[in-house]
Amino acid sequence: MATLWGGRFSGATAGLMRTFNNSIRFDVRLWDADITGSEAYAQALERANIISSAESAALLNGLAKIRAEFNADQFIIEANDEDIHSAIERRLGELAGDAAGKLHTGRSRNDQVATDTRLWLREEILPLKTHLRQLIAVIVNQAETHIDALMAGYTHLQQAQPIRFSHWLLSYGWALERDLTRLEQVYQQVNVLPLGSGALSGNPLGIDRQFLADELGFSSLGQNSMDAVADRDYILDFLSWAAIVQSHLSSLSEDLIIYSSSEFGYLEISDAYSTGSSLMPQKKNPDSLELIRGKTGRVTGNLTALLVSAKGIPSTYNKDLQEDKEPLFDTVDTLAMTLPIMTGVIETLTINQSRMYEAMSSHLLATELADYLVEKGLPFRQAHDVIGKVVQMSLETEQPLWSVPLSAYKSFSPLFDRDVHTWLDFERAVERRDSVGGTAKAAVLAQIEALRKKADG
Amino acid sequence: MATLWGGRFSGATAGLMRTFNNSIRFDVRLWDADITGSEAYAQALERANIISSAESAALLNGLAKIRAEFNADQFIIEANDEDIHSAIERRLGELAGDAAGKLHTGRSRNDQVATDTRLWLREEILPLKTHLRQLIAVIVNQAETHIDALMAGYTHLQQAQPIRFSHWLLSYGWALERDLTRLEQVYQQVNVLPLGSGALSGNPLGIDRQFLADELGFSSLGQNSMDAVADRDYILDFLSWAAIVQSHLSSLSEDLIIYSSSEFGYLEISDAYSTGSSLMPQKKNPDSLELIRGKTGRVTGNLTALLVSAKGIPSTYNKDLQEDKEPLFDTVDTLAMTLPIMTGVIETLTINQSRMYEAMSSHLLATELADYLVEKGLPFRQAHDVIGKVVQMSLETEQPLWSVPLSAYKSFSPLFDRDVHTWLDFERAVERRDSVGGTAKAAVLAQIEALRKKADG
Amino acid sequence: MATLWGGRFSGATAGLMRTFNNSIRFDVRLWDADITGSEAYAQALERANIISSAESAALLNGLAKIRAEFNADQFIIEANDEDIHSAIERRLGELAGDAAGKLHTGRSRNDQVATDTRLWLREEILPLKTHLRQLIAVIVNQAETHIDALMAGYTHLQQAQPIRFSHWLLSYGWALERDLTRLEQVYQQVNVLPLGSGALSGNPLGIDRQFLADELGFSSLGQNSMDAVADRDYILDFLSWAAIVQSHLSSLSEDLIIYSSSEFGYLEISDAYSTGSSLMPQKKNPDSLELIRGKTGRVTGNLTALLVSAKGIPSTYNKDLQEDKEPLFDTVDTLAMTLPIMTGVIETLTINQSRMYEAMSSHLLATELADYLVEKGLPFRQAHDVIGKVVQMSLETEQPLWSVPLSAYKSFSPLFDRDVHTWLDFERAVERRDSVGGTAKAAVLAQIEALRKKADG
Amino acid sequence: MATLWGGRFSGATAGLMRTFNNSIRFDVRLWDADITGSEAYAQALERANIISSAESAALLNGLAKIRAEFNADQFIIEANDEDIHSAIERRLGELAGDAAGKLHTGRSRNDQVATDTRLWLREEILPLKTHLRQLIAVIVNQAETHIDALMAGYTHLQQAQPIRFSHWLLSYGWALERDLTRLEQVYQQVNVLPLGSGALSGNPLGIDRQFLADELGFSSLGQNSMDAVADRDYILDFLSWAAIVQSHLSSLSEDLIIYSSSEFGYLEISDAYSTGSSLMPQKKNPDSLELIRGKTGRVTGNLTALLVSAKGIPSTYNKDLQEDKEPLFDTVDTLAMTLPIMTGVIETLTINQSRMYEAMSSHLLATELADYLVEKGLPFRQAHDVIGKVVQMSLETEQPLWSVPLSAYKSFSPLFDRDVHTWLDFERAVERRDSVGGTAKAAVLAQIEALRKKADG
Repeated sequence: MATLWGGRFSGATAGLMRTFNNSIRFDVRLWDADITGSEAYAQALERANIISSAESAALLNGLAKIRAEFNADQFIIEANDEDIHSAIERRLGELAGDAAGKLHTGRSRNDQVATDTRLWLREEILPLKTHLRQLIAVIVNQAETHIDALMAGYTHLQQAQPIRFSHWLLSYGWALERDLTRLEQVYQQVNVLPLGSGALSGNPLGIDRQFLADELGFSSLGQNSMDAVADRDYILDFLSWAAIVQSHLSSLSEDLIIYSSSEFGYLEISDAYSTGSSLMPQKKNPDSLELIRGKTGRVTGNLTALLVSAKGIPSTYNKDLQEDKEPLFDTVDTLAMTLPIMTGVIETLTINQSRMYEAMSSHLLATELADYLVEKGLPFRQAHDVIGKVVQMSLETEQPLWSVPLSAYKSFSPLFDRDVHTWLDFERAVERRDSVGGTAKAAVLAQIEALRKKADG
Repeated sequence: MATLWGGRFSGATAGLMRTFNNSIRFDVRLWDADITGSEAYAQALERANIISSAESAALLNGLAKIRAEFNADQFIIEANDEDIHSAIERRLGELAGDAAGKLHTGRSRNDQVATDTRLWLREEILPLKTHLRQLIAVIVNQAETHIDALMAGYTHLQQAQPIRFSHWLLSYGWALERDLTRLEQVYQQVNVLPLGSGALSGNPLGIDRQFLADELGFSSLGQNSMDAVADRDYILDFLSWAAIVQSHLSSLSEDLIIYSSSEFGYLEISDAYSTGSSLMPQKKNPDSLELIRGKTGRVTGNLTALLVSAKGIPSTYNKDLQEDKEPLFDTVDTLAMTLPIMTGVIETLTINQSRMYEAMSSHLLATELADYLVEKGLPFRQAHDVIGKVVQMSLETEQPLWSVPLSAYKSFSPLFDRDVHTWLDFERAVERRDSVGGTAKAAVLAQIEALRKKADG
Repeated sequence: MATLWGGRFSGATAGLMRTFNNSIRFDVRLWDADITGSEAYAQALERANIISSAESAALLNGLAKIRAEFNADQFIIEANDEDIHSAIERRLGELAGDAAGKLHTGRSRNDQVATDTRLWLREEILPLKTHLRQLIAVIVNQAETHIDALMAGYTHLQQAQPIRFSHWLLSYGWALERDLTRLEQVYQQVNVLPLGSGALSGNPLGIDRQFLADELGFSSLGQNSMDAVADRDYILDFLSWAAIVQSHLSSLSEDLIIYSSSEFGYLEISDAYSTGSSLMPQKKNPDSLELIRGKTGRVTGNLTALLVSAKGIPSTYNKDLQEDKEPLFDTVDTLAMTLPIMTGVIETLTINQSRMYEAMSSHLLATELADYLVEKGLPFRQAHDVIGKVVQMSLETEQPLWSVPLSAYKSFSPLFDRDVHTWLDFERAVERRDSVGGTAKAAVLAQIEALRKKADG
Repeated sequence: MATLWGGRFSGATAGLMRTFNNSIRFDVRLWDADITGSEAYAQALERANIISSAESAALLNGLAKIRAEFNADQFIIEANDEDIHSAIERRLGELAGDAAGKLHTGRSRNDQVATDTRLWLREEILPLKTHLRQLIAVIVNQAETHIDALMAGYTHLQQAQPIRFSHWLLSYGWALERDLTRLEQVYQQVNVLPLGSGALSGNPLGIDRQFLADELGFSSLGQNSMDAVADRDYILDFLSWAAIVQSHLSSLSEDLIIYSSSEFGYLEISDAYSTGSSLMPQKKNPDSLELIRGKTGRVTGNLTALLVSAKGIPSTYNKDLQEDKEPLFDTVDTLAMTLPIMTGVIETLTINQSRMYEAMSSHLLATELADYLVEKGLPFRQAHDVIGKVVQMSLETEQPLWSVPLSAYKSFSPLFDRDVHTWLDFERAVERRDSVGGTAKAAVLAQIEALRKKADG
């Protein structure tokens, strides 16, 4: 350990402190990013005439060997390797000799780690985008397949108005589409180069930072070295993005869990995404969805964690910032599971159209009756009041609205006429909502087309 | 109260329930947005031939009168007004008669409130942008004024390398510049029209939603009515934006509080932003900065609050979502204070350049010595080790590095030569960092120019 | 404003800073506690011979007048009153003359505010205890009234085993009983005296702190003055207590919302705790419960807020701590609503026993069948597997378990015999669970008796 | 996997779902608790005549062998072991044959896991108590050793009044003493038996739950089976306890980091708890303290995580609750590091008494001067104002208060007399605060004695 920073120290690090301080148990996954960053930096050192081309070649060869060792699962982490960067530097020393000692010239752990983390996250965002697109795609497909299925639409978990099942499902597609847009924005925040910022004050060796950015595929440079080594906004952005995604998935899970209860019975979750009970032989539980919903806690907690760690710390690097990685890694890992699991659940869902249809109460059409009276000339507020009383009577007499005779309707308002019963039709009600974003078939098909384009990227 | 939804109810609302349910104590501030939304909707109803032009005129006149009453602080909220929307609807009934009862045709509280909140927040974002720009501007001005002031740069609150005071201050300018960029993105998320989505299933009256969007200045339409009435992502986006801004302000506060302690003494906070003690007559406390730092809790709490409220609720509108407003309002109010207060603090800061300079330890130049040895051919890792030992000797003998004689240097490495002392110069060290984002004067001036453009918008 | 701490200041406070700094808009509610604390301190000053008995009398008279003014709603807050303590001190000066200037001798705003807040919270905890007890009491009453109602018990929102309705309801009673126990513990943390700690270093005037504690009813003294002025643990304790209470209420709300959907139909929420829809005349929404559930966000956010504000601030008083009051006040106010609202909801609940009974699936008895086979000698794991297959057959053939003929049972296991059908009885299943905490009537009645004692205090 | 709950399933679990659902990667650490719980349950089954004494012996032998395998690190987890409970059950089947299939009779995964987690946490609390006591003990020791060291006491990070160094350090001792008290209370919440609650409805086999409690050392029984399987309050209690502990440690870290900056220079952190820089050879960074402070984020995040996961889920067991373990485990692991690391830091701290003394400004005595005038008869508020002006003059003329001549004092108030300079003494000021909790030596020694008793337990 003393190799990296020990010259000035006389006492040894306490054993427990070493364990406390070391990060290799979790930052080992930055290995590929670390090698990539070092490859670029070696070339930049050569271009700035800090190292010779022979030294540069030695470094690049050594780094290539280390990459090969990792790929072959043969890289050995030693007890003194406090983090992945030390481990690779130590190994590079063994492979490339003196040149290895030059790779850190003008580079600090601070700009190195910041660069590695951005490189790593940038690569992780790509599969997350794909997962989002695939989830949108299965939503769109199910919506299309079941375009004609009608269902009670709910507000406050009470039957509200008739909708298409597909309209309900697509509502989540649009939320996920926003997630896709915001993920692009997060990506832009991530894709900024810190390398060349040194410990805090910049690089004194004439390193060409634009070359580094080009080499590493960053679209811009950190413009202030103190900010560049300390900036964790891109992680906070990512974590809050993830918390919002999970918020969507938690509500979709909730709907699916309720709709697949035996009391609702609208849907069945596939055996592939359910589990049973160790005690009760009949149970089939939607564990997949409960876990997705539950993991909203973990992701929200990760966001909170970094906001707390970052709060009120002095500028530039403080060791508090080492606490950025585990919430980030855990969040990436969580979303890399919850999104595909939800995709699988939706893809394999059994939809019970007849059960949905039978469950629709005639009261879902109360608004139609109010609209009917409006069309006959009654102001809406009065119409609402009249229909409220009709509904109350219907509840007391246990008659569905379509069974209430015209004479009874007329007792509430003389405006009711023979055509009233033609309005009490779910299909008609759904088709009347034909403006953008409504439940009419054409409007829903337009959604399907638009979202499919987003899913296709 | 029964006027809006009472027809179907036989029992009265419990008194405490009314208090619990009512939101007018906080949503009254949506009054202007609510009127604006209703004006557009009245016109849309006329265009769809749901109301006559006389009725439309009556509504617009009534709404104009209500706006005038609010502006003159003469609008009277009555005991039965459960929220601002009911209050305005009630008053409109008094002013516009029967036409008022038609304004709610095809419109639900759900799409109305969602529209109002977006209209309101859209208007609040503009001054926040201005506040951000002004804060960046005073940072840039102070940086320019003190461009020649040198200071110890810190990592881990330990002296690290010499920097320019302006470089430190500008590091916060760049963080705030990111906040500006992200606020633009939040604005785009906010600026989407929900109106015309009804309670959950869309509008059945042939309302022209594009007309509504144009009239209200929204750049796009919500594409799914169920999503449109329930979507609170734009609030979560805003709250997480605010939490990150406060994270920046909390660190800037921390630095300023520490730098203005009598032990550091680099800065003095103006009397205008300080307060005293009721017991200790000598005290001048940086209360402004402590409050800014402390309010990071409130803003983070508001973000957590809405994430928790939103977690796992079923789709479309549930009353849980009424809990979106207070965190949003409180966050807007908080940022509308913390940003200008910080601007005032920075603007009126007294900077003690000589105290900063005197506090600079010779050890800030240890990296220079390592670079010196690197230039003489020693690999950086070995140079680091040599200088570590030099520093230890310097600490033990209480000699600054510039007072260590050449002979002593040579005892650590034969590579040391007469020119070593010329490297032990703060200005030289600062000027060596001349790459993009470094501490050299030219590099800092480039930052100033770039940031000023951002501040100017 | 300059009266309290201005002597050392030459510049004026910025206008916006005054608004930012002032706390009287929310701390005014500490008025009674502040007067009470000052009354005790005036007496202590007299006992320490710092003021004369005439001065003490003048102070007590003045304070009594101020209390009367507040009680009569006649106390006038002036523009320069930055907080309730300054306001009262200013008014006391008007009423008691020079003596008022002596009340602050040896007392600081720091120990004063800490004392006031503890006094205030101590008084607020008492009604919260009563609210908790009342909620437990209505739970117990409903459980007793409906002791014979059977219901499907759920895990994973899937029917699991038959239970008593009262057993389900009482499960929340026990959670609330823990809340009662923990509230007692919080009370002990609150009930510690800070007064006499000065700004940070204690009292130099021979004040008798034990007298203060006795006078104010505190059960112990803060043992370190620096800790005493900064300690906010009791608020954090209270906030986390509240977050856990809300966690219970949120789950109870969730159950009630689901059970009162038309698809479940087990319960009806009273009109008194429901609201309707502005658009849909038939709607009766469980807004009370959704608000309770939603307010879990607010309370969790308040806890987060103070944890963030407190994180990493230096010892003793920092202005960040002024941010303790709003989360505390809001949490007290919230619980003072959510608990009685839930009490009202439970008290007025209509329970549909027949609907509950009809909804019970025969599969709730699958575990009985497994136990049956166990009694016949089959190890449980094998019995579980056999019954799993029986259930699958029952699903495919759409036969309830009680309609499956013995011959069919025998085809799964020769151990089945004539007595199998006697096991397929909900009442029997419920009565079999007769150990402590089980569903048997006697066990549930024992719960009712035990909880009633807790509710009675 | 199908062995535990597969009978009713026809489709296989999706591969990714298996990974998603499995918990053995983290719940393996419950192995010992799981064996202990099963041992007790086996005996209870025998006592209830559900299994024979031979079967009971087979189970106990098998469990003993499994324990031995774990202790020898020889237990093999297989691919199909979804959690530690399945793994142990599977292995028990291999070792104990048919009897193993009977161990689950009347026991569900729900009551089993709840019992295991409580058993595990109960054991983990004990070392945490010891860590707390040890930290208090080193605080007390350092306070005693340095009882005579005077230091500036700070509020708002500005010098406020003179204190003893030990008084400052002990202030944290009292905060930790509260943590000890609350940990005892958490322990009581943990120590309640769920076993015998089955999946949700209790135990039908006449299991003696009191026997189980006695055998497993639980002090009480869960009184409602539905509550018992779902209750996670004890984990929330523990997590909020931990968040408050970390709040204390974060402030202590902050103080130590600031006090060990070169500008303050009051303290030096031992090499054993510091690390260096890879770039800057002179750096010695207080990484230990920054990590402790930073980990407050993680612990607060863990609390948030479980509050979010628990919010609004239906009663009894839902898979969301599987998310309780990782935040719990991580929090235990974190505190098991931060507490001993802080103990090590405090124990090895170098205290620079002379530097502390020299840094004390004469303005620390401003309150003494005000008290002086009070003693001469001036009301405190007027005295405060006079001294404010004295301080301002002192700042302008750059004279310490002790160098201001009597004539100058008299120009501010005729009450000043020759004895004024005797009041300007740090020791005298500190000794004047001799009430309980003050800075006088006797008062601090009383704290030391009292806290030492707490540390000794």
